[in-house]
This record gives sequence, structure tokens and C-alpha cells, in this order.
Amino acid sequence: MIVVLNRDADEKAISKVAEKLNRMGYGVHRSTGENRTILGAIGERREEAAHTLEAMPEVEKVVFVTSPFKLASRDFHPENTVIEINGVSIGGSALAVMAGPCAVEGEGQLLKAAWTVKEAGAQVLRAGAFKPRTSPYSFQGMEKEGLRLLEKVRRETGLLIVTEVMDQFTVGELAECADIIQVGTRNMQNFYLLRELGKIRKPVLLKRGMSATIEEWLMAAEYILSGGNYQVILCERGIRTFEPYTRNTLDLSAVPLVKQLSHLPVIVDPSHGTGKSSLVPAMSRAAVAAGADGLLIEVHPHPQEALSDGPQSLNPGQFAALMEELKGVAACVGREL
Amino acid sequence: MIVVLNRDADEKAISKVAEKLNRMGYGVHRSTGENRTILGAIGERREEAAHTLEAMPEVEKVVFVTSPFKLASRDFHPENTVIEINGVSIGGSALAVMAGPCAVEGEGQLLKAAWTVKEAGAQVLRAGAFKPRTSPYSFQGMEKEGLRLLEKVRRETGLLIVTEVMDQFTVGELAECADIIQVGTRNMQNFYLLRELGKIRKPVLLKRGMSATIEEWLMAAEYILSGGNYQVILCERGIRTFEPYTRNTLDLSAVPLVKQLSHLPVIVDPSHGTGKSSLVPAMSRAAVAAGADGLLIEVHPHPQEALSDGPQSLNPGQFAALMEELKGVAACVGREL
Amino acid sequence: MIVVLNRDADEKAISKVAEKLNRMGYGVHRSTGENRTILGAIGERREEAAHTLEAMPEVEKVVFVTSPFKLASRDFHPENTVIEINGVSIGGSALAVMAGPCAVEGEGQLLKAAWTVKEAGAQVLRAGAFKPRTSPYSFQGMEKEGLRLLEKVRRETGLLIVTEVMDQFTVGELAECADIIQVGTRNMQNFYLLRELGKIRKPVLLKRGMSATIEEWLMAAEYILSGGNYQVILCERGIRTFEPYTRNTLDLSAVPLVKQLSHLPVIVDPSHGTGKSSLVPAMSRAAVAAGADGLLIEVHPHPQEALSDGPQSLNPGQFAALMEELKGVAACVGREL
Amino acid sequence: MIVVLNRDADEKAISKVAEKLNRMGYGVHRSTGENRTILGAIGERREEAAHTLEAMPEVEKVVFVTSPFKLASRDFHPENTVIEINGVSIGGSALAVMAGPCAVEGEGQLLKAAWTVKEAGAQVLRAGAFKPRTSPYSFQGMEKEGLRLLEKVRRETGLLIVTEVMDQFTVGELAECADIIQVGTRNMQNFYLLRELGKIRKPVLLKRGMSATIEEWLMAAEYILSGGNYQVILCERGIRTFEPYTRNTLDLSAVPLVKQLSHLPVIVDPSHGTGKSSLVPAMSRAAVAAGADGLLIEVHPHPQEALSDGPQSLNPGQFAALMEELKGVAACVGREL
Repeated sequence: MIVVLNRDADEKAISKVAEKLNRMGYGVHRSTGENRTILGAIGERREEAAHTLEAMPEVEKVVFVTSPFKLASRDFHPENTVIEINGVSIGGSALAVMAGPCAVEGEGQLLKAAWTVKEAGAQVLRAGAFKPRTSPYSFQGMEKEGLRLLEKVRRETGLLIVTEVMDQFTVGELAECADIIQVGTRNMQNFYLLRELGKIRKPVLLKRGMSATIEEWLMAAEYILSGGNYQVILCERGIRTFEPYTRNTLDLSAVPLVKQLSHLPVIVDPSHGTGKSSLVPAMSRAAVAAGADGLLIEVHPHPQEALSDGPQSLNPGQFAALMEELKGVAACVGREL
Repeated sequence: MIVVLNRDADEKAISKVAEKLNRMGYGVHRSTGENRTILGAIGERREEAAHTLEAMPEVEKVVFVTSPFKLASRDFHPENTVIEINGVSIGGSALAVMAGPCAVEGEGQLLKAAWTVKEAGAQVLRAGAFKPRTSPYSFQGMEKEGLRLLEKVRRETGLLIVTEVMDQFTVGELAECADIIQVGTRNMQNFYLLRELGKIRKPVLLKRGMSATIEEWLMAAEYILSGGNYQVILCERGIRTFEPYTRNTLDLSAVPLVKQLSHLPVIVDPSHGTGKSSLVPAMSRAAVAAGADGLLIEVHPHPQEALSDGPQSLNPGQFAALMEELKGVAACVGREL
Repeated sequence: MIVVLNRDADEKAISKVAEKLNRMGYGVHRSTGENRTILGAIGERREEAAHTLEAMPEVEKVVFVTSPFKLASRDFHPENTVIEINGVSIGGSALAVMAGPCAVEGEGQLLKAAWTVKEAGAQVLRAGAFKPRTSPYSFQGMEKEGLRLLEKVRRETGLLIVTEVMDQFTVGELAECADIIQVGTRNMQNFYLLRELGKIRKPVLLKRGMSATIEEWLMAAEYILSGGNYQVILCERGIRTFEPYTRNTLDLSAVPLVKQLSHLPVIVDPSHGTGKSSLVPAMSRAAVAAGADGLLIEVHPHPQEALSDGPQSLNPGQFAALMEELKGVAACVGREL
Repeated sequence: MIVVLNRDADEKAISKVAEKLNRMGYGVHRSTGENRTILGAIGERREEAAHTLEAMPEVEKVVFVTSPFKLASRDFHPENTVIEINGVSIGGSALAVMAGPCAVEGEGQLLKAAWTVKEAGAQVLRAGAFKPRTSPYSFQGMEKEGLRLLEKVRRETGLLIVTEVMDQFTVGELAECADIIQVGTRNMQNFYLLRELGKIRKPVLLKRGMSATIEEWLMAAEYILSGGNYQVILCERGIRTFEPYTRNTLDLSAVPLVKQLSHLPVIVDPSHGTGKSSLVPAMSRAAVAAGADGLLIEVHPHPQEALSDGPQSLNPGQFAALMEELKGVAACVGREL
């Protein structure tokens, strides 16, 4: 940490801050500039220490030199993490495609969606059983019955299942019927949930919070990793900006950036990222070209009858056509589909 | 709802959409403009209906005429809601001040903070027992022991207690030791928690999500109201913008806007809203002048020793001075403190 | 336009608004819903009319049915606009690459950059002669001398030149030495400049304002088109968000979206869009995969000696390697490089 | 400046960066931490130097210790700047109120507006002669004829005039008929205009760019100050965020923050800041309570007939009532109106 002192800090003030640093266990390295004195604090980065220092009137600001995440950092683990689930690998040279409807709506719909995405080449079926919505008057998901349908479809089709967990108390239940547990954008900083997910040994798909910085996203991953679960897949799904045409602004630069900062696999959700099915093919191609390790795409047998997210869902024909297109783009960047 | 058809929608397309609307139970009112045909859908606003329509290729967009919240709306309840708790009223002519440390750190600290804020005129003590943090390596709160200390301080000082709930499973436990249950910014759209809070009969302080629109915030209140708990206090606490000098951008225009749209009381948290104690007095005065029904302010006996949020906490002297200042501003806008 | 009346608007209020619409020349179509009466205003979209109506206490809001741009709209001009300049076409099947240093720094630097980008396959040299900067104490560009160097390099290398114009009074001068005139992000809504550019018959490269919506960007193009200059190239260059790791957030979804809304070519600037040279290759590939008609890339012979934007400039070797990579991606989406 | 080296920087890399710093004229102070080596660069802050360093592969990032503005900084000029114009002072204990219509629309409208605001207690009349708009099809202002009307109204009423300048070439002309020259939000970083305004000796009202950080805003002021014109009034007018209910989000925390960072007066424009006349009174009171030195308010004799900005304009009665209310708030914060 670097502690920048106030402009009018005199020797007494400097000593006071230096002593505080010493008491906190930091070595101190003083550097006197033309306008400010700075103290380099030699020791581990600690947020509390920074807060304490910034509450001192002698201190203008504290600047961190290192990033707050450790286990999620590529410094710590230089090679890419590759997650293997029943023969499907995520983060290796092959791309992983997870596709399916927003919500489990019934057995017929789910089975039809599953076979559709499987035939087109997807390895993982996505569908939510718990769908709490912004309006209390909207469809809220099939809940436990939805989980049973997911299990059934997993057995019948052999597809892996990714589905969203809502709180720390249902982690166990979901872990039984899902191969990958999804943390939604609104739960990215539900720290009790993250801590619980650190205790299991199942892959977690961690969506970026809709207004989370990349550092906050990697810190959320750090929570899971610090519990001992190293199987975290990051998922960029768009951030909130002032642009009203799209539901969110898909931040594809997060893909190469996360690849530099971290060893974890990163996939992209162009469906939530744009909110418009007509933009999904272009953004899927772009995501692969940017280096994403996979895609999470909403596909519904009949988007116009979907109980949620119809406007951003591809129909089966559109999805199959997209999968064909993606093969070429994948090859260009040295990946297979 | 107004359904705007695509530019090239012909009679057949128009009929198809009109029939869909009829099947959904809407009356249809057609209006043919120079460039577009629009269909007015006469009936209740339903998000699912809009999604279904927007997934049709014949439809360009669906525009809502009414707002999605009902019980939270001033249309529904024209008078201000005033919440009474043991002689303290929130939303009436007197302002409510809730103050105290970010976290319960120990009995001495909490008692000292409580007497400090009580003597300066606050009616409610704020302090968090559960403090999950962005870093898994930071102090996470005293948890259950913290709740016991809050209860003790409530008995000793007679102050009301507001403290944050983290999930739907601890609502009951908190309801026993707190007078007002706080929903934090990261939980504003934790719909299972909101639903649980709808079942109790205790006031809920609902913080605005850090990137929530005002409509989303009022919809979160609607969740609680729709469960039968009408005691919701809204709290503006700053939104996320591109400005790095302040921790958040405190959106004070939310105060008069919420007052127009809703009957619920709205208070302001200038501590999180700015992240800097030096900005808290000015923004507290501004909040009162804008018509806020109260304030939520971080006060710590020794900000430089706080385990969290020290840089944004007032010390006892600063808080007492601010309370004096606020009396005059309150009087100017016809309120008492 | 659709005029939504206030909840409590009675027959008298409705008549008053309807009469106002009639006086403004609009046909009126009334639709009475369960909660609100709406009036469809049949006639041309006019912003002033909407403002007038929204200032009436009887009116809750005015909703536009059509977009504000006409000449820029694909409704108006269904085929792609292809701009031809000395044998280089922009918006057709071949991609256009514009590359070079941020600023003209001297003859040697500019010539070296020019030959470098030409050899690697770029068709257009980019470099700024006027470089007003956020700090008055920074290098401000070679100005007129820079323009002379650009002319010289154009003659020697045969490359087309794109360079930035700063105000309406230098449009003529720049038009003499540049093949494409660039409007920078801060000038996107300099309406006098746009109006002047409408009068010339040279292609204009219009960068998106750093916090401009897509609608505002297309309205800026409309200004130029409405003056009679139909050669407008749009350039996405990143928008301002809360994310601090990147200089801007490159909004690649703008590419397919603009292609739907408009017939104008759209290119991408991944250098300003990210601010980090290490992210430029991935985002260039992604832009091409998303359907961009070209790229604008900063390349400097020696980025570490650049007077501006060194951290986001590729060196010659990096640029040549990227051009190779892009060929494959272009082919996948049916384009050539 | 502090130069943070890459994690894997060895002694050779460290020496290379240190030598570069020496060649740039900086003294170097090395500090070796547990994870990173940092070099303190002793000397003046220079953006170019930072860019050069960040383009070196050995460097992770450069952190500035001091702010980029000097003349605008309170470090440089500890007392408040008070600007005196014909007996009206801005930045002293009395508040300055500037009010009037968005645009000059004609002599009758302007005169009526002027007498209205004068009688209510405003000292300055605001009105724009040049009104380039987002749509090329909208009213664009009366231009030169508007300036003549402003001059006439100044003579007749004795009010000071503030009006907006559009480019550097009309600064002289405006300086003749205006007492304060306004720089609009879209021109905040029009550096040629700022430079020209540095040469005159008239007060400049500098609006914050709609997506400008406070640092960028103060740097824009620095441009004017560095030319020798010390009469700069800052004006907060709302920033662009994701919230759609208001036209902008008025950032009132900018008021006390700018007061800490700078000695320049700062006023607030609640009309553009909210876009809704119903929010203007509350936000005007809040601005004064937050410590603003004045207000810029849109007032129109007949808002429903305004050619622009009617929905955010107060009518004469509303304005007079607001002025009364503000007197009390001003007194509470030790100011007069």
C-alpha cells in the first residue's frame, strides 16, 4: 500500500502515520516529493488497514499496489484452469456451449428444448427452476418440481445441467440435480451464498453483477476459491449503462482482460447481454473471436410462448444456424466447437 | 399497454397481433398513423404479455402506459404513509434520525456510540451484526453475538434499533431484537427475502440498489407491500456512476421524485452516498431541504479505529454539530427535528 | 406520437389536449384504457410538439412511436451505403483498415508509421494534427504543419488519409489534405460543425460520443446527411461506464444494432475503446466477427516514445500479426481483408 | 508520480525504468515491497511522462499523487474566489440567482421573462441566442438577432446577462452583449474555445460536461485560468446515468467536493439537472443547503408555449414562490438571497 499524506502534513503528522503503520505490522518506506510525502507500507494488502488510515486527517488517500484477489489471480496460478465434467471440458481448447430456455416451464417444453440444443451441438442444458422476478405479480418458476424435471431430462438426454441457485440453503439440493451451479447477477455479492459454494466440490458458474467492476467480480470468485472450491467459471452477461436500446451493454473486453488477470475460464451470455434475439448471433461470434471459453444462450422451442425472456431467445432453427457459423470463428482463434 | 407494430406490418400481420391480444384477454384499439400502426391493449399491465408480444416478429416494441407498482403508488394511496414505532414516527412532520457505527464491534463501542447519538437527538441506533464484505479476508461482523449486544443496548438506552438482515432465514431472529429491519443495497432484489419480509409486521428499511432505477426500487417495495406488510421506509444511498471521487453518487432528486410517485417515507444515507465524512454534513442538510423524512448517518466513537467505514463516519462532536445545524434547515421546510 | 394523459384527466382535460393537438396540425385518435386515456397524434414526429405537450399539467408523458432519424434510417434507405474513395470501398464486402499514430509528431515518425501500416495491408493512414488535450500543459499537436506532413505522406505512399477536424472553420482546409474527415468523440454533438460537414462532398468518419446513446449518434449523422452529404461512416469507440480497468467500455453490440437501424457503414476503434494495447487484438477480432465494416487502430513505430496514447498503440510487429489473424475471421463472416 | 513495476520485473527491468525516469528529469526513489517494486518519481506531474512509462512492458501502472489542476486548486489559492460584476458578487455570502427562458424567442417573451425574474429577486437573466439541437429539424435559436434582444433587455431592465457561446470565433461578439459567458455541457472540453476564453476578461460560467468527472471539469477550468482569466464560475447541471425518470442525475455532492478541491464559485442548474419543473423547487432548496453559491433556473412566461425546455421551466408564480422559500434555507447556511 502507498499512503499519500496531506499537502500540509508536517514532520509530526508524518511520524504519527508512520507509527500507526508500524503498529499495524507494516514496514515503512518514506519518500518525500515536491508536493507530497508518501509512505510505502511494506506488508500485505489489507482493506481494513486502508480504511483506518484514510480516516486519519493526516492522510489524503491510500493507493493499493497489488490487486485484492489472490487465488483468482494469474500471478498465483499461471496456467489456465480447465474444468472437466463428465467428459466435457471448460477452459481448454474446445468451446463449451450451454443453451436452453430461461425457465423450466413444463416437461414437454424442457425435453423439446434439450433435444434441440443437443442436436445442434450444445453440451450443457440451461434452464431455471427458481425465477423470482422484478414484479411480484409475474411467473416465479416451477421451483422444486422444476428441479425434478431437470434431473429427468439429464437422465434422458445425457446433457449436463446448469441451473441457478437462489440462496445458501438450497446449495445441497441443487448440487444433486445440477452439474454446474449458476450464481445469478443479483447474487454475485451474496457472500453467504459464495461461502457455501466454497464448501462444495461442484463447478460454479459465476455471473458478473450487472454493475460490478471486474475487480469485484474476481473478488466474488475469490470467496468461492478461498473455501477450497477451485471450479469457478466466470460469465460476462452485460453491464448497466445509459444506453436504452439494449437491455444491458455486453462488455466483451472483459473476456481478454479477465484472461490476463485470472486463470479461470470465462464464458459469455449474449442473450441477457443484449436482450434482443436479433443481436445474439453477432455477439456470439464476437465473443468467440474475443477468446471466450464458451457461450450461454437462451433457446426456446417457441419464443413467442415463453413465460419469460422470449424476446431474447433464439428458436431452434436460429440456434442450429448459429452453431454452424461459430465453428468457423472458433477455428480462426485456434478453438474447436 | 401500447403495441407498436413493425413498419412493414400489413393487414394480415396486424390481425395476427390483434388476435393474440384478444386471446390474452385484452381489448384492442387500433390506431393507424402515417408510419406505424399501433394497437392499444385495454386491460391490466402484465410483463409476461409484453414479453410474448415483443417476441413476435410483427411487433417492434411494447410501451407501458402505467407504472408497474400498484400498492406502492400514490395513485393507490394518496396520503403519506406515516410509520409509528414506540412513539417515534417516520414520514410525519418530525424528521427521524438513525445514527451509529457501521458494525457492532463490541459492547463498549456500541454503548458509547448509542449514548452519543441519543444525546445529540437521534431516535434510532444503526449498527450491523452481519457484515459480509467484498473481501473474504476482511472482518465479517460479530453475527449472533452482535444481535445480543444490540438487544442489550436497546434496553439500556431506550433507542430504537435498525439493523441489516442478510437472508430470508434470519428474518424471525432479527425481528426479535430490531425495531426496523434493514435490507441492504445488494439485497434490494433478493426476492425471497422481500417475500419473507412481506409476512412480518415490522417496519422494513429498504435501501436502493446501487444500480437500481427508481422503478425497480419501488417494485422491490411492492414485493413487501404485496405480502401485507405496509411499513416500508425507502432509503436513498447513492448510485454507481463513472465519478471516482465519491464512493457513490447520492441521487437526491430521488427524494422529491419518490414523494410524487409513492406514499412511502423516504430517508437518505449520506455516509454511503458519498463515502467521505467531510461531505456528510452538506449532503445531510441538502437531503432535509429536498424533503427527506429522515437520515441514516454513520457515527463512530473513534472513526480511525473503526473496523469498517471509518473514512465515512462522523465522530461524536461532528455529529452533534450537524444535528444542531439540521434544526434550522428542517424548520425552513416545515419539519421538526 | 402517443400522448398519455394524467390519471385524473377528466373529459374537459382530454378535450383541452386534443384541441392543442389539432391546433398543432395533428389528427387525434382517442383510446380509453382502464387506468389512463391515451391520445394517438397522427402526423409527423416533432420534438417541440412533445415538449409543449409535456409542459401541460394534463399530460403525464409523450411516447414516440418512430425514431427521430430519417435519412440515417434503414427504413428510408434499405440497402447498405457503400462509400468509394479512390478505389477503396467502405461498407462493401471488403473490410477497411485505418491505422497509424494518435498524433503527427514529425516527418520521420509519420512516414515510418505510414509504410508500416501500408505493408501490413491498411488502406488508410490515421494521424491527428490538432490534439487539444485534457491538460493545457500537454502537447497540443503540430497543427497546420501536421497537415502539410499528412499531405506529403499521402503523395509518397498513396495511402488515403483520415484526420480529425476540430471546428467548422477548418473544414475547408482539412478537406484539401484529407480523404476522410474525422469528427472526434467530444465533437459528436457540435452541431455547427456537423452542419458545415453536411455542405461538403467528402466522407466523414463520425465517432460516437463517449456518453452518447445510439439514437443521439444516429441523429448526429442525420445532421450531416440532412445537409446533403451522404458519405458518413460511423465509428464505435467505447462509452463511459463505471469500470476503471479499461479507458472506455467498447460497445460492440452497437455494430449489429446500427446495422439494423441504419444503412451507414460502421467501423470500430479498439484502441480508444480499451486504452490498452494488450486488448486491441482480441477486440479487433471480435469487432470483425460482430460485423464491423472496418477498424481504426493506433499503431506507432515506437509506442514508448509516443507523445500521446502510447499505452494503447500497437507496435509494427503486433499490427502485422493482427492483420494476418483478421483475414481468417473476416472470411468466416463472408468478408475480405 | 508512483511507478508500479510488473510482478516479474527483475533488477535489469527496474534499472531500465529508473534510467528512463532520470532521462525525463525525475528524481527516483525506490521502494521494494513484498510483491512489487515501486519507484517514486520526484518532480512535476506530467501526463505524457505517465503515458510513456505505461507503454513500457516493465511497468504495470503509474499512479498520480497530486491532482492535475493547479490554478483551479485550493492548494494554490486557499481563499474563495469572489467574482464582482456591476455590484453583483458571485461566490461571496450572497447567493446569485440567474433565471430566464431556455431560448430567446422574441422581444415580448424575453422582456416579460426579464421583468418577472427581476421582480422575484434574480440578479442575472439567462437566455440562449444560439440553440443548436439534437435534431436538425428543430428550432435552432434566433442567433444574432437574439443577441441584439439580449442587449436591449439588459439596458431596459438593468439585469446582468448570461448567455451561451458556441465556438471560439464568437467569443468577442458575445462578450459585448453578455456579462457572463456560458460554456454549455457539450463544449466543456472544446479546448480551443476554452483557450479563447482564457484571453478575455469576462466571467465564464462553465457547465459540467454531462459525463465529465469532477477532475475533468476542474481541468477545463484550468484551461481558462491558465490563459489569465481568473473569473470562472462552475455550474453543476446533472450527469448521465442509467436512471430514466430524470433527464440527468443532479450530482449535488459535487458542490461540497468542488468547494474542498477548488476556490472557484459553484452554482447549480436544477432545471437541466432534473428535466422536470416539479422537481426544481426541492432541488433548488437542496442545492442552497449543500452550499452552492447560486442557481441557474429556467423560467418562462408560458412554459406550455416555450420553443424548448418547457417541461423543465417554472412559470412566474412558481419562481416567485421558490425565491421566497430559498431565503430561509439561505439564512440557515449563513447566506443571503
